[in-house]
Amino acid sequence: MSLEDRDTAPLVGIVMGSQSDWETMRAGADILAALDVACEVRIVSAHRTPDRLFAYAEEAAPRGLRVIVAGAGGAAHLPGMLASKTRLPVLGVPVQSKALSGMDSLLSIVQMPKGIPVGTLAIGPAGAANAALLAAAMLATTDADLAGRLDAWRARQTAEVAEVPDDL
Amino acid sequence: MSLEDRDTAPLVGIVMGSQSDWETMRAGADILAALDVACEVRIVSAHRTPDRLFAYAEEAAPRGLRVIVAGAGGAAHLPGMLASKTRLPVLGVPVQSKALSGMDSLLSIVQMPKGIPVGTLAIGPAGAANAALLAAAMLATTDADLAGRLDAWRARQTAEVAEVPDDL
Amino acid sequence: MSLEDRDTAPLVGIVMGSQSDWETMRAGADILAALDVACEVRIVSAHRTPDRLFAYAEEAAPRGLRVIVAGAGGAAHLPGMLASKTRLPVLGVPVQSKALSGMDSLLSIVQMPKGIPVGTLAIGPAGAANAALLAAAMLATTDADLAGRLDAWRARQTAEVAEVPDDL
Amino acid sequence: MSLEDRDTAPLVGIVMGSQSDWETMRAGADILAALDVACEVRIVSAHRTPDRLFAYAEEAAPRGLRVIVAGAGGAAHLPGMLASKTRLPVLGVPVQSKALSGMDSLLSIVQMPKGIPVGTLAIGPAGAANAALLAAAMLATTDADLAGRLDAWRARQTAEVAEVPDDL
Amino acid sequence: MSLEDRDTAPLVGIVMGSQSDWETMRAGADILAALDVACEVRIVSAHRTPDRLFAYAEEAAPRGLRVIVAGAGGAAHLPGMLASKTRLPVLGVPVQSKALSGMDSLLSIVQMPKGIPVGTLAIGPAGAANAALLAAAMLATTDADLAGRLDAWRARQTAEVAEVPDDL
Amino acid sequence: MSLEDRDTAPLVGIVMGSQSDWETMRAGADILAALDVACEVRIVSAHRTPDRLFAYAEEAAPRGLRVIVAGAGGAAHLPGMLASKTRLPVLGVPVQSKALSGMDSLLSIVQMPKGIPVGTLAIGPAGAANAALLAAAMLATTDADLAGRLDAWRARQTAEVAEVPDDL
Amino acid sequence: MSLEDRDTAPLVGIVMGSQSDWETMRAGADILAALDVACEVRIVSAHRTPDRLFAYAEEAAPRGLRVIVAGAGGAAHLPGMLASKTRLPVLGVPVQSKALSGMDSLLSIVQMPKGIPVGTLAIGPAGAANAALLAAAMLATTDADLAGRLDAWRARQTAEVAEVPDDL
Amino acid sequence: MSLEDRDTAPLVGIVMGSQSDWETMRAGADILAALDVACEVRIVSAHRTPDRLFAYAEEAAPRGLRVIVAGAGGAAHLPGMLASKTRLPVLGVPVQSKALSGMDSLLSIVQMPKGIPVGTLAIGPAGAANAALLAAAMLATTDADLAGRLDAWRARQTAEVAEVPDDL
Repeated sequence: MSLEDRDTAPLVGIVMGSQSDWETMRAGADILAALDVACEVRIVSAHRTPDRLFAYAEEAAPRGLRVIVAGAGGAAHLPGMLASKTRLPVLGVPVQSKALSGMDSLLSIVQMPKGIPVGTLAIGPAGAANAALLAAAMLATTDADLAGRLDAWRARQTAEVAEVPDDL
Repeated sequence: MSLEDRDTAPLVGIVMGSQSDWETMRAGADILAALDVACEVRIVSAHRTPDRLFAYAEEAAPRGLRVIVAGAGGAAHLPGMLASKTRLPVLGVPVQSKALSGMDSLLSIVQMPKGIPVGTLAIGPAGAANAALLAAAMLATTDADLAGRLDAWRARQTAEVAEVPDDL
Repeated sequence: MSLEDRDTAPLVGIVMGSQSDWETMRAGADILAALDVACEVRIVSAHRTPDRLFAYAEEAAPRGLRVIVAGAGGAAHLPGMLASKTRLPVLGVPVQSKALSGMDSLLSIVQMPKGIPVGTLAIGPAGAANAALLAAAMLATTDADLAGRLDAWRARQTAEVAEVPDDL
Repeated sequence: MSLEDRDTAPLVGIVMGSQSDWETMRAGADILAALDVACEVRIVSAHRTPDRLFAYAEEAAPRGLRVIVAGAGGAAHLPGMLASKTRLPVLGVPVQSKALSGMDSLLSIVQMPKGIPVGTLAIGPAGAANAALLAAAMLATTDADLAGRLDAWRARQTAEVAEVPDDL
Repeated sequence: MSLEDRDTAPLVGIVMGSQSDWETMRAGADILAALDVACEVRIVSAHRTPDRLFAYAEEAAPRGLRVIVAGAGGAAHLPGMLASKTRLPVLGVPVQSKALSGMDSLLSIVQMPKGIPVGTLAIGPAGAANAALLAAAMLATTDADLAGRLDAWRARQTAEVAEVPDDL
Repeated sequence: MSLEDRDTAPLVGIVMGSQSDWETMRAGADILAALDVACEVRIVSAHRTPDRLFAYAEEAAPRGLRVIVAGAGGAAHLPGMLASKTRLPVLGVPVQSKALSGMDSLLSIVQMPKGIPVGTLAIGPAGAANAALLAAAMLATTDADLAGRLDAWRARQTAEVAEVPDDL
Repeated sequence: MSLEDRDTAPLVGIVMGSQSDWETMRAGADILAALDVACEVRIVSAHRTPDRLFAYAEEAAPRGLRVIVAGAGGAAHLPGMLASKTRLPVLGVPVQSKALSGMDSLLSIVQMPKGIPVGTLAIGPAGAANAALLAAAMLATTDADLAGRLDAWRARQTAEVAEVPDDL
Repeated sequence: MSLEDRDTAPLVGIVMGSQSDWETMRAGADILAALDVACEVRIVSAHRTPDRLFAYAEEAAPRGLRVIVAGAGGAAHLPGMLASKTRLPVLGVPVQSKALSGMDSLLSIVQMPKGIPVGTLAIGPAGAANAALLAAAMLATTDADLAGRLDAWRARQTAEVAEVPDDL
């Protein structure tokens, strides 16, 4: 996959700290696909590729991205450092870590000091999906078509909740 | 203060669960004022005024709000319930609680299940300020003037960091 | 199953946030069946079906329910929001969540602010069973027959505790 | 104060592990007074007066109590041990402890094993107030007058929530 | 197994809240057997058999027991309530619980208020084994033979620590 | 104070990691004095005086001590390291630490691996008092006079629990 | 203070995320002064001055620094990001945060993924002092004079531990 | 393996509390091998072999070791006690424990009081690998060849981070 080959310029950048985070972040990409929101997916490691992180953040707005969704685990610095280098909204997804179940990821992402915000979602795939939904909700505030698709997605979700458990 | 009397229609709604949360949320209102983003401030208690919560959420988008910033403490249900009732992006601010220092607020807000997102910020006033900054960042993606003001705010923040501690 | 078809009007409503919570909440339904207390079982998602939640809470007392047992996981808002909309006693069951083992569910349910109570039980199936036992205990305060059945259930439970481990 | 001198037999027993817990539990007694629900207040230490605990639990139902509200801190065994000795519903209030801020109290009360329930409220005075409200809600299911008073109390609470912060 | 059939009167009582705790507590019985310290093993549930708990505690010293080792999980009240009813030293073993991994068990046992002590060991089988070792250490202070056996056990344990890992 | 000058050989050694721990541990010394149990009080820092720690542990049994009560905070290694060097029972008191309120102290003391036990008490002065009571309970198993004094102390404690709060 | 004016080139760089961290980090500077190790003190905010962070890290080794001590609080990214940009050893000091007492700072610093290490010290001033001691210990492995000064410092520390508490 | 047989004197000592820790610590030995840094591997149990611990620490510097990497789990006293007995830098690796997932190990290692530092790494194998990398970074400050090898290792690590996930 290359950025240049895509017919539609991506509005959302989904980045993650390592290959293993993809298992979590895929849930976000799936949501954006379902909502027909163009996105790109990248691995950017805050610790192993800090220069790539800076470059990605610096180029994000000029390249036309409108929001960045960043997932990382453990001492998760990726979302916060992206946010320090771009004016774009950054949404953080705490990946569930092995020893501490993502509590370390969550606190490393959400407890940003005053001045540089990261909008943080739940630990794990639910958080990745919700980051995508929140990104879509942001874009939908100025895109009536997307707002319609998002409304439909939410209505479908509501309709799919059964009245009673399956195996009562 | 009344909504109708304002010359500029608010784009951001800052809501909070109780009077005591204002001490925290004021930091967000101050940021929006500094960035010249019109906002309104309301008390909406998920538990004591659930109907007001539903009405607020249902009218938010039609009234022209573009993002909601919601602060609450303890078993903090306000941000998530607003998000369940509006397509608008909702940002949550965990207010520091007495016994558990806001860990209960944080988990009650951030751990939303797949389907309804709340972008969560840090516990306390830093989180309120950052929610406002994130709201501004969202709006700035389609408002070049605001983007300029936000860039200037961030540049000033960077410039204000001294090289060495004051009382070295 | 439909409410209308039941010969006995339910006194206890067991509600849960999603199908997956049924695995936990079934333990409560089993206890009520053993104690011959009529109950109904419903899925009510605070976040995906907020209007259903409000309707359920508003109709609960008029329909003759005497207590609601509500289970949910993660940022668990169902019990508290039901309690905000009904005068009936609401008992909350924190469902064990994947990442945080139900600590998020517990705090989201138990840490209700002053004014709207939720009587919270243990995380997981033990809590669901105990919510049913507590519901029965409430009803038994004005139902001598049920009091007798509850006493017998408790006596049997006591009698079943062996003196020494099986495989000593 | 003596039980015998009261004109109205108490329906709710408020018990606590020590004198120092009264600062917390008073919030519950105040609520019951406001709702005109007769209650008694006792110190019963699970650890220092275990026989008093057993006697209190054994006599509670015969004496006409309908619900017990028990507050304790640290390794808080009072609510659970009362529940093990009475068929009456027991509501537990975790008192905020010095070192661990009531997290120890909370877990000691809420994590009861299957078979003996304790309906647990929030840590501290909010939990004490809510335990009283939940006790009243239980009694109100068979007492229309109390139901009316409780409805009025809740309506007043709703009405008292201001629209905007005082010092906006 | 019956107490009466044993040739040697037990000095240590190992009690636990349920059959399922035996998997943990067996590690303690094994240690006492290895040290040739007579013990008895009993199931005593604080919540399901509170009267048995009181009887056990009251008879423990008269029957000649010198120390009680008590294991329980979740809202673990057994060790503390035994300690409230006997002058004998009580050692507590937090059994690993399903949702909270024994953190609830640990806090419920160790955080006893001033006046009634429980000497608490680690969560799980290591704690059960150590409770037995501590019981033996107590008895060994006035039993030179046991002191010798304990010294030998400890020396053997030291000798069995390899210098380098097996599979270096 | 010197060991040699005491008329009665100490049976209990109270040791602590630093001067600042004395504020906590004094509660234990007071209990032993009230029970007329001879004790000595020493500062032994695991980290700053490791050789003193080893010497103290090695000489404890030969010098006639029967139990060691050790208090420390943070990464609290004193109780466990004493236990590794003496056959005597060691009781640990987690001192409340500044940042983590003694949770670090508690886990550092109680989570000893299989083989070397430390009987751990509550965080802070309550734990220090209880360590002394547990030490006395151990000694009382072979000292009828002390058993009587301990019984009296406990009976007095029970008698001092008021029936109702002072300021009802 | 300017780098250029110092007669001795600094071997240790003490950096911190904000002015308010200096209260904590000063303890480290004091230790280095006592050990006569040349250091520099800088404010480098990961989030507000990310470019300064990168520049500092890139120039650290060429400028002759041998170890970096970095303190930060909350979502503390400074130590880890410095480590990602320099081959020099980086030691991290978690500053005690307001809401979560530094548990967020600790996990954000210590839980670095495989590949980029940060040697983490205790929360607060003790950690800052110990970071300085560890930095000195590193330098002392190839500096016999410093090794002697460090030995003397440690011996003095040992000697200053009193045998008994002051106010026994 | 014996120390004497090695052609190169070890610069790094990797020690661990038990055989079972080797599974974790092997990740550190592998890194040192990859960087061609001579190391030795030893089992030293703080609790079961305290004298071996003291001997190891006392001989470490005289034998030519330059840094010690110590891993342990639960109430992990090995790193801190080694640090108390040697001037060499000690790096601690919290081994993931069964009940508390290494949070006990982490706090027992990192929360050292002022005066004796342990540079602590992440819980589990990542921490072991990083301890080795940090040890190498320390040695590299005075060993240009090793600095080159470390730079190459880091560059390779950076190069190996893919741009996009494998299974996009």
